[in-house]
Amino acid sequence: MTELRSFLFYPDMDQEFPQQNLEGFNLTVWLTEAVGIVVLILMGIWTTLYRGGFAWRSNPALEFNWHPLLMTIGMIFIYGNGILIYRVFRVRRKRKLKIAHAFMHLLAFVLAVIGLQAVFDSHNLNVPPIPNLYTLHSWVGLIAIIMFAFQWVSGLVSFLYPGLHVSLRTSYLPVHVFFGVGGFLSAVTASLLGILEKAHWVITDYKDLPVEGLHVNFLGLAIIIFAALVMFLVTTPRFKRISIPEDELLLKEGIVGE
Amino acid sequence: MTELRSFLFYPDMDQEFPQQNLEGFNLTVWLTEAVGIVVLILMGIWTTLYRGGFAWRSNPALEFNWHPLLMTIGMIFIYGNGILIYRVFRVRRKRKLKIAHAFMHLLAFVLAVIGLQAVFDSHNLNVPPIPNLYTLHSWVGLIAIIMFAFQWVSGLVSFLYPGLHVSLRTSYLPVHVFFGVGGFLSAVTASLLGILEKAHWVITDYKDLPVEGLHVNFLGLAIIIFAALVMFLVTTPRFKRISIPEDELLLKEGIVGE
Repeated sequence: MTELRSFLFYPDMDQEFPQQNLEGFNLTVWLTEAVGIVVLILMGIWTTLYRGGFAWRSNPALEFNWHPLLMTIGMIFIYGNGILIYRVFRVRRKRKLKIAHAFMHLLAFVLAVIGLQAVFDSHNLNVPPIPNLYTLHSWVGLIAIIMFAFQWVSGLVSFLYPGLHVSLRTSYLPVHVFFGVGGFLSAVTASLLGILEKAHWVITDYKDLPVEGLHVNFLGLAIIIFAALVMFLVTTPRFKRISIPEDELLLKEGIVGE
Repeated sequence: MTELRSFLFYPDMDQEFPQQNLEGFNLTVWLTEAVGIVVLILMGIWTTLYRGGFAWRSNPALEFNWHPLLMTIGMIFIYGNGILIYRVFRVRRKRKLKIAHAFMHLLAFVLAVIGLQAVFDSHNLNVPPIPNLYTLHSWVGLIAIIMFAFQWVSGLVSFLYPGLHVSLRTSYLPVHVFFGVGGFLSAVTASLLGILEKAHWVITDYKDLPVEGLHVNFLGLAIIIFAALVMFLVTTPRFKRISIPEDELLLKEGIVGE
């Protein structure tokens, strides 16, 4: 029981940083990861068992299934975890965290681009072709991805390489955080819109709430709970990462990128 | 030009509270209100001109139109403004702001209940009846309203009457703020889901992006921009209301509800 407590509640952290009250932090992180994995499993089951699995251009109808799966992995699960990395690995050096943050979001972007290719192919290669980008889902999703790409490039240039002057970085940081979190919530909204419109298209007896309908609704709720937990971890002031001595030292020495 | 600047940028505020940097605050508030009114106008036009206007039980199909209109007025526009009231009327006494906050949210709740009655009626009185509460939109919307009702009652009991002890109020406040903002974002998400599913149901040529399809997509974007502006005003630390002398005095004297 003591081991479980120490595993869940960061007792060592409290000793190292007595000024931080991290009670419940670790438990919430584990819960967030568990819900995130439930999201991936529910989406995996939906695309594989209910919607027929995967193909690439040989079968545009099945190629479509890569779209919700890759978007959920990239723009929900990895995006959310990329935001959380400064909280979860709070005792690591900041430069390492920045590189990991940038790398995770690059991975999310690559998955999103493949996911976009899948949906465009599935529309364009259909006989007859299905028009692209006409629903509210597609508009919100496209805005989320464009915002995400801008954020990634401006984050790289500002905080990693070449790196802005400290004063400029300090004033850009809240903007980066606001649009980063805003982009995440836009991606969450886009995913719910996409799930709902697909449900209306393919679950012909949705109004009788068959097993697939219930599955899809619970998938949507799981995404909302994941997003709420990420937001809780990110907005709670006492969970904020505090600078470790190395960060300060390197900043004072003017080493860019720390 | 000077008048416009002073009207938009709170110069008097800067003099009274030199420690607060409110640059851009008033401009953002006006922009938020303008976008909020655009949302109401776009929803008004959609329900009136495109969807045939309003009736009550004599015509369940038209009774439905009260649902999106009242939900948008109550759970988006008034809810958002109720959150902002502590920022916008920052020099008023806190007790007055609390009463206004509670009253606006009560009004939002009443409108939402009438809006719910309209959708249940339009389903139940249809021939044949349409099942209720089966889509993801309905699940997210119902959760948002139940959360909202709990928040309203616990906010009243904690902060207005009878009022908890100061220490309990202080620890409940961040919870109230988190679920208040979370409920607002849930309501925004529910509204987008509702708009999208209605669009798929009634705009039979949605894929050709007719005028009504464009109208609906821009309505969705306007709601997202309104929500983003509300979030910006609420989360920017320098826009936070700071206590005025009366607040402190009354708190020290232990007068409950201040």
